[in-house]
Amino acid sequence: MQKHEVSGSVVRRLPRLYRLLRELERSGVVRTSSRALGEKLGMTASQIRQDLSCFGCFGQQGCGYAVTELRMHLEQIMGLDALLPAILIGAGSLGKVVSENVRFEERGFRLLGIFDIKPELIGKRLADQPIRSMEELESFCAEQKPVAAVLCLPKESAQAAAEQLVSLGVRGIWNFSHCDIAVEQAEVVTVHLDDSLMTLCYKLHNL
Amino acid sequence: MQKHEVSGSVVRRLPRLYRLLRELERSGVVRTSSRALGEKLGMTASQIRQDLSCFGCFGQQGCGYAVTELRMHLEQIMGLDALLPAILIGAGSLGKVVSENVRFEERGFRLLGIFDIKPELIGKRLADQPIRSMEELESFCAEQKPVAAVLCLPKESAQAAAEQLVSLGVRGIWNFSHCDIAVEQAEVVTVHLDDSLMTLCYKLHNL
Repeated sequence: MQKHEVSGSVVRRLPRLYRLLRELERSGVVRTSSRALGEKLGMTASQIRQDLSCFGCFGQQGCGYAVTELRMHLEQIMGLDALLPAILIGAGSLGKVVSENVRFEERGFRLLGIFDIKPELIGKRLADQPIRSMEELESFCAEQKPVAAVLCLPKESAQAAAEQLVSLGVRGIWNFSHCDIAVEQAEVVTVHLDDSLMTLCYKLHNL
Repeated sequence: MQKHEVSGSVVRRLPRLYRLLRELERSGVVRTSSRALGEKLGMTASQIRQDLSCFGCFGQQGCGYAVTELRMHLEQIMGLDALLPAILIGAGSLGKVVSENVRFEERGFRLLGIFDIKPELIGKRLADQPIRSMEELESFCAEQKPVAAVLCLPKESAQAAAEQLVSLGVRGIWNFSHCDIAVEQAEVVTVHLDDSLMTLCYKLHNL
């Protein structure tokens, strides 16, 4: 695997390609081509080849790709095969939906702990885990060394929580807090649900 | 506005460009360039120009874009300025999070009604609306003519609900049901939260 700089848009397109390959596998498709993949993803064959070329050589000229092999390569490229320890902060309605619906273990993470600040939530269970007090956060991080955190907090408290998490060793934040977060020395991926809603709006008006 | 065929990837990039322009506006930036926009979005200046050229002529050679003007153009292109009537199906924990957190009116939609099948939820309130029985759905649609529906159902019931909605005149579905839905004569935009989680996983392993 080559580790040179890969553009953000290429990285963001990988999961879609990965999902498509999983679907093809489930439908029993054994081989595919850049062109077929591109058609399903609204890209050209050459864009597919270009994206993949960032990570090495895949497929054979004129023969396309073995679906399972390419899917496994992407799994390795994205690091889905090694489970990174993660925690979730905020066990309100958003945290509940995220912890119960996201398949962390299929996406490269193991959820080790869920934290909230509200006394009435502490000790209750969510996604098969006890909800822990934020007072436990520091000792928990020292012991379990989570590298990623899922932020499900109101936007007023998101930035401060992110800073605390980074100081405790967290290097990646999956941010559901409807605000942009700036922290140094950590990757932040913010979920913008609204983007897909605007896409739908466009389609309803234009297609 | 030109209405020729625009590729899916261009359409999916519009909301990100739109959000960036809103941020620039809020920070008091008056003019910007394809290059500056591209840098923030991980694209080249020429990709920005190409994307925008699908919808007409914007900006002036050598002078860049007036931020507010371009933001307003995008609003018009995506149809955010006209509120499309929408309903939400499924008032469980997912429906609660979506209805309470998504700013529908800023994203081109007006939420007219929320529906669920569970008797114990009917009549309760969510996002300032009463939860209605699915038995009311047909007459409600005949009267209010929603064109879009937000699906917050378990995946087992999503496909059947989508078909019913399309038969009642819905033309666009925002699908949170963790499954692919196939309906003719309607646009479906599925929310894949997992994609952004995989992006974070990649970054933690590679950057």
